[in-house]
This record gives sequence, C-alpha cells and structure tokens, in this order.
Amino acid sequence: MNFADRLLQAIDDRKNPSIIGLDTELSKVPVFLQEKHQKAGSDPFQQASACMLEFNEHILDAIKGIVPAVKVQIAFYEQYGWQGIRAFQETVARAKRLGFVVVIDGKRNDIGNTARAYANAHIGTVDVFGKKLAGFDADAVTVNAYLGSDGVQPFVDTIKQLGKGIFVLVKTSNPSSGELQDLSCDGRKIYEVMAGLVDRWGKETVGERGYQSVGSVVGATYPKEAESIRRLLPRSIILVPGYGAQGGGADDAMPCFNADGYGAVIHSARAVIYAGSGPDYAEKARAAAEKMRDDITVSLKKKGIYPW
Amino acid sequence: MNFADRLLQAIDDRKNPSIIGLDTELSKVPVFLQEKHQKAGSDPFQQASACMLEFNEHILDAIKGIVPAVKVQIAFYEQYGWQGIRAFQETVARAKRLGFVVVIDGKRNDIGNTARAYANAHIGTVDVFGKKLAGFDADAVTVNAYLGSDGVQPFVDTIKQLGKGIFVLVKTSNPSSGELQDLSCDGRKIYEVMAGLVDRWGKETVGERGYQSVGSVVGATYPKEAESIRRLLPRSIILVPGYGAQGGGADDAMPCFNADGYGAVIHSARAVIYAGSGPDYAEKARAAAEKMRDDITVSLKKKGIYPW
Repeated sequence: MNFADRLLQAIDDRKNPSIIGLDTELSKVPVFLQEKHQKAGSDPFQQASACMLEFNEHILDAIKGIVPAVKVQIAFYEQYGWQGIRAFQETVARAKRLGFVVVIDGKRNDIGNTARAYANAHIGTVDVFGKKLAGFDADAVTVNAYLGSDGVQPFVDTIKQLGKGIFVLVKTSNPSSGELQDLSCDGRKIYEVMAGLVDRWGKETVGERGYQSVGSVVGATYPKEAESIRRLLPRSIILVPGYGAQGGGADDAMPCFNADGYGAVIHSARAVIYAGSGPDYAEKARAAAEKMRDDITVSLKKKGIYPW
Repeated sequence: MNFADRLLQAIDDRKNPSIIGLDTELSKVPVFLQEKHQKAGSDPFQQASACMLEFNEHILDAIKGIVPAVKVQIAFYEQYGWQGIRAFQETVARAKRLGFVVVIDGKRNDIGNTARAYANAHIGTVDVFGKKLAGFDADAVTVNAYLGSDGVQPFVDTIKQLGKGIFVLVKTSNPSSGELQDLSCDGRKIYEVMAGLVDRWGKETVGERGYQSVGSVVGATYPKEAESIRRLLPRSIILVPGYGAQGGGADDAMPCFNADGYGAVIHSARAVIYAGSGPDYAEKARAAAEKMRDDITVSLKKKGIYPW
C-alpha cells in the first residue's frame, strides 16, 4: 500500500496529524531508569543502549492509539556505536509491531550506489548471499538533497517498489537555515527550487488520496516561507519540526496544511517524551501527546479545516 | 595534534596524497571469501558482516605504508543493520591501529543537539553515566551543510577540542550536482557560497602548516569549478572523489592542489579494492594503490608542484 495513503489512514484513525520524536538521550532518561541499567552489566555502551530501549518501549506503549507516527532520530543512537544502533533497530521494530508509522530521521544523502545503499538500509532490502533481507525496515526516512536527483532517485525506486516514503529537507527550522536556503537565484529562493524538485521527484508516487510519498520538511518556525512552499508542492506531505521546544506553536504550523485539512504532520519530541522524570514518565508523555493533539485540533478548527 | 597537520604528515611520510575508500559491498567481495563466510553461521547479516570485515582487514594490511588515509563509507555497512555497523566500527578501529588517518564518509547533517550527537558519534566522545567514551572515533567525517552554521558548529567544537577534522560537501562529483550547487545567487554560484562558508568555519582550526581542519569535498569530474573553489578556500584540504571509476584522472584533480603541492587528497575506492577477485586480491589492491600514487606523482611533476 502507498506510503502517503498509509500515513493519512493512520492520521484519520487517531484524528491526530502529529508525529512524536524518539530523540532519546541517555542523560535525559529519568534518573531511576539510568540507575537501574547502570548496575546491570559491565559494557557501558550496552548499558546505555538497554536503558534507552526500555525508555522507548514504555513511551511507545503509552502513546499508542493516540499518536499515528513516530520519528526515530538515529544520531542519538549512533553515539553509542553498534550497541546504540542495535537499540535503534529494536526501537524501530517495536514501533512497527505496535502499529505506528515509523520515520527514521537520518537526513541521509549520497549518490549512485551509495544512495542505493542508504535506501536499502533504511526503507528497503539488501541482497545477502542471494536472499533479500531488510535492515532497519522503516516506513520512511528523511533525506538531504543537496546532491540533486542522482541522490534521490534510488530512494524513489524503493518507494515505488515497496510502498515506502521519504521526507526531503526543504526549509529547516533552525536560525541559520537561511544561509543557503534563503539565497535568491533568478527570483527564486533555494528552498523554493528545492520544493519544485520535491514536487517533481514525487510525481510517480501519488496515492489514491492524491498525496505523494515524497514528503518534505519545513520548519514551523518559518510560517511565511511555509505558505509559499505549500503552493509549490501541493501533493507533498510536510513534516513540520519546530513545534514546542523550538518555539513554534500549532498556529505557526497551519500554513503547512492544505485546505482539506491534510498534507502535514507536526513533530514534537522533547516536550512529549521528557514531560515527566519520575516513575510515571510514560503517563506524563501520554498526557503531553494528548495535549498536543488537542492544541492542533483547536488550530485546525480555528482555521476551518478540521477534517473529522 | 591538529588534524590537518596529522594528515599532511601522513601524506609526506608516504609521498602520496591519496585516500582509499573502503566502499565494501558484499556482492563485490571475491566469491571464494563470500563462500567461506556463507558456510560459517546462521544469521545472514552476521555472516555478511564477518565477510566484509575480513575483506577489509586484508586490504588494509596490503595498502599499509603506501596509502596515508582511508575513507570508510558507512552507507554500505548500514545495509546490514547493527551487525553491519559492528563490522564498520571494527574496520575503523583496525585502520587506526595500523596508522591510517581514518575518514568516515557519512555526509552527516542536522542541527543543535542532534548535530552534536553526530559529532560525538563519529569524531568525538559521549557521556555515559559520567564517563566520556568514544564511539566510532575516526579522525574525520564528511558533512553536508545545507542546514547552515548551526549544523556545522558542533563539529567545529569537537575539532578544536580533540584535534579532529571534517570535510564539507562543496561541489559533488555526480552528474546532477549542478541542480542546486550551480545555481547563481547575486553573481555567485551556490558551491562558491558554500566554499566561502567552509573557509569561515575553518578559521580557528588552522594548524602549524597553514591548513585548516575543516576540509571540503570537490569532485575531480569538475576541474573548472575546482579552480574557482581553490581560490575561495586556500587553507582547506580538498577531498577529491571521482578519480578512476567515476571518470576523472589525476590531471583533472590538479586544480584542487595549491602551488605548494599540498591541499588535496585524491580518493579512489572501487578501482583499488576490487582490482582483483581471486585469492591474490589484496596484492592486486596494493598494486593498484601504487599505480594510483605513481599516476598522481606524474601529474604533480608535470604541473611542477611535486613537493618531495
């Protein structure tokens, strides 16, 4: 089944266009949980990974049924070497088993064979002695397209073959994103050029509901830029970081939605997963996820585009 | 010791400004080695990883003393999940033990805390229950800077603290690199804007020999663009892919060198590591690495900038 269709179905089922980030950092895990794992073994990276995995499992169990999708930020796990990647891989697998749409935030990018390897690793399969096997096997992965079409095509091939998706960085949420992305080339900003490319790359990945499986990333911290981008890629689902901890509210994310009330998923990580620090941290995360959903609901209704 | 100084010393010791890529793909490993590992166990990803690691170890042993640096392309290992990353991590560790300068080709990019996590993972250390521990612990990593300074600063902090390095993508070697990188903004190409940023980011990382530890990536397939870039970042060491399999020769890489005969390292992977397919594959790789060194020597002498 087409990735865009699957994501929209998951959003409909929960009446909630949000995606929660498992940006799990060991030092931010509740202290009681850190202490539990610190005593358990001898390899520090193994202890760290087990601690992060247990934290993730409780968070996933708590937000299940409320949140349609999770985004797992691989950078935080890479810090702990292969043991960290093992916890990452098990987190992705568990989230999938629980019915979440799972996006890897990896911002991967390369060319030719190497881009193909990244597509295989994150959303595809790899040939091992004649058998096709899946590695991380997420539903989608974020992609940085500074290298142009050569770097994106292998991902698009996988999308078409396996019903997966990508989200391409267009206008990022950080203060210095304008250094490159806001430059004007023949009257068009670089982020507008990128938006046009994303629209083109996604042409052959459009699902039954009219959205394409080549999504885009546009920060909630730049609502004006989002308006122009939304017009340039009407069929792309926009992943919107910057809500909550980065200073953007649900209202700021509204320009990323289409008039049908679809076309965007709003991302939050820290404000949800670190909502509590005691033994009730998972319940606190659940409450924060519900509050975020309600906040988005208010903004969508205010704008008159609440679809449910 | 400053990364740029260490890299130049390694180049001087071997009179060879080249870097060999461990772009190890299971299907390209000699068949006899695949067969050996296929029989050895039950988990296919474990077998694949053991096979790739043994291949790498023999290649490293063979090119030691001839080649100053290796670049390990993490994408190929990610395909095999955490087991692949384990083989990757052990490859990096072994290359360091053998005295190679080790560059991870990861093209990592993100912002704030997340960029910090990537810097920790690849070239830095991470705090685990109060202890500072290193993960991959390479000498340098490649970085994609589409997100601007916010994404690069955490790497620069690590460079200054631990004597490590990065190579920032400026003008990539692939056919479609121009879609974004060649756009003109107020008379400057995007790759020229990026070159100016790289020069600025590296200002406080200059070593005793006048080169900075913030390097750049410029494809040998674009020699004219390389001339303009070389002028814009005189102190940056340019990593030059595109030699060999991608169609560029040593002459095409010459514009990346400064008049002192330094300032560039030429990269080749497939033409060296897959030079042979029989039991003598490592010797063949050694011979290919020597041929590449001699080819570069001829070009440097022809241009009158051979420094030894």
